[in-house]
Amino acid sequence: MNCIFCIFVKILRMYLSETSVRVRYAETDRMNYVYYGNYASYFEVARVEALRDLGMTYRRMEEEGFLLPVLEYKVKYFKPAFYDELLHIKTCIPFMPSVKIVFRYEIFNETGMKLNDAETTLVFLSKESGRPCKAPSELLQKLSPYFS
Amino acid sequence: MNCIFCIFVKILRMYLSETSVRVRYAETDRMNYVYYGNYASYFEVARVEALRDLGMTYRRMEEEGFLLPVLEYKVKYFKPAFYDELLHIKTCIPFMPSVKIVFRYEIFNETGMKLNDAETTLVFLSKESGRPCKAPSELLQKLSPYFS
Amino acid sequence: MNCIFCIFVKILRMYLSETSVRVRYAETDRMNYVYYGNYASYFEVARVEALRDLGMTYRRMEEEGFLLPVLEYKVKYFKPAFYDELLHIKTCIPFMPSVKIVFRYEIFNETGMKLNDAETTLVFLSKESGRPCKAPSELLQKLSPYFS
Amino acid sequence: MNCIFCIFVKILRMYLSETSVRVRYAETDRMNYVYYGNYASYFEVARVEALRDLGMTYRRMEEEGFLLPVLEYKVKYFKPAFYDELLHIKTCIPFMPSVKIVFRYEIFNETGMKLNDAETTLVFLSKESGRPCKAPSELLQKLSPYFS
Repeated sequence: MNCIFCIFVKILRMYLSETSVRVRYAETDRMNYVYYGNYASYFEVARVEALRDLGMTYRRMEEEGFLLPVLEYKVKYFKPAFYDELLHIKTCIPFMPSVKIVFRYEIFNETGMKLNDAETTLVFLSKESGRPCKAPSELLQKLSPYFS
Repeated sequence: MNCIFCIFVKILRMYLSETSVRVRYAETDRMNYVYYGNYASYFEVARVEALRDLGMTYRRMEEEGFLLPVLEYKVKYFKPAFYDELLHIKTCIPFMPSVKIVFRYEIFNETGMKLNDAETTLVFLSKESGRPCKAPSELLQKLSPYFS
Repeated sequence: MNCIFCIFVKILRMYLSETSVRVRYAETDRMNYVYYGNYASYFEVARVEALRDLGMTYRRMEEEGFLLPVLEYKVKYFKPAFYDELLHIKTCIPFMPSVKIVFRYEIFNETGMKLNDAETTLVFLSKESGRPCKAPSELLQKLSPYFS
Repeated sequence: MNCIFCIFVKILRMYLSETSVRVRYAETDRMNYVYYGNYASYFEVARVEALRDLGMTYRRMEEEGFLLPVLEYKVKYFKPAFYDELLHIKTCIPFMPSVKIVFRYEIFNETGMKLNDAETTLVFLSKESGRPCKAPSELLQKLSPYFS
């Protein structure tokens, strides 16, 4: 049944997190904007903090034998960000991860204007074998309340 | 008529260019890969050199009053690039630009393996008005032989 | 008189500030360390926050017609910083600025180990003339209590 | 004897190399200059190419068990570099390396103007022990003609 209530429930079934980054001079370009390539590291901060809010650290996952390279990255830029702005990033894990994990992001400036949205798909690799593997069970346990 | 010949001609109706970049230590990360966010500056090099091959420079376009921010950026990563590799980037302008210009990219390593492909959409802005505007007529003139 | 008390007083005649940055994956290199070139943007964060603590922002100085390029930069690396570490940066303005301003920095990791120290010398330029000029009077006023 | 001839001979007793880098948009900042922190990766390119000219690659040294972190870095900025400029870097190894290796650099723009000079001191570490060690004998052999 695709009733409104079901859709609403489905909308709630995701994990959400928020973080902030302040734009560094190093990250601007001569157009006076944040260089389009530098948002990738803001999204990295956002997903790392999303995991930290959940009680996981990406660093520990690596120490426990997982690598998490990015498979796909898409971003749409609506408005530029400027030097010294404090940007707010809303991060969402929209599905329970399996071998892959998807993160979606929206960046807002201080006045609440949406600057861009983006999505990254990452894959869990076993450090030992170099092969794709299932997400760490600790992560799945911590995420499961958000998806049930 | 959608005959094979027409499709072939259509395939030829695009502008192609090639350039190389060598991976810097600065661009690697602790996974030993080129950091996923650093490809954006490789693609920047690729499109700037594609324009230079055509007899245009992005710098002169800016001096003549055009800005060219990125509206959209998509990349799929198949294989990682490593330190000191000489990467080959194939760049294509698939359509005649109007207010927007699309670039498509493929990166290959030294052994000819395809590492990723990407697409950026940029918009021409008038520096004066800050508003979208038509691509510089010099660019359109120089590209037109490739699309007729 | 070079008595100990005078030296002590002289030591106190400086402006001190502290800030923190967390190491991003983007900032590491394949040696597993923070890339030596990336500390420059940490020191940028440190001096910008040192000014903000004083009630000044670098961004507003620029808007009021000052540029502040770096003339000299020296850094000694004792120990590496690693991914995800929360680094503490102690910043000091050791002299009253005139046309130039000196910042000194020390970075410590979470366990209190000193990782490096550095110094940058910046020059105030008038945006209008492009020539060196005196530091903004507001900055001098705000710093003067620390040097009298 | 500090006669002119001896000084001249001493001047010749060094290893010299040249390379070029083109300024990327990513490397500029909103002052319209190359960001002061980005020269570090230009100097990295310069020393890596200096070694390659000698028939060594930094990458192979790493594969053979050496790490080469930077211990000290000093740079004086005289003039800014701008977007799309082709910069020429002169690199010099002024002394025969031992446990440490010193590189000196000068960057010139297209019009031959000297933009900055810099020095980095790096230390050879054994990957296995993590301890300082002597430079690889192959490097010493290849450098010795320049210092005898």
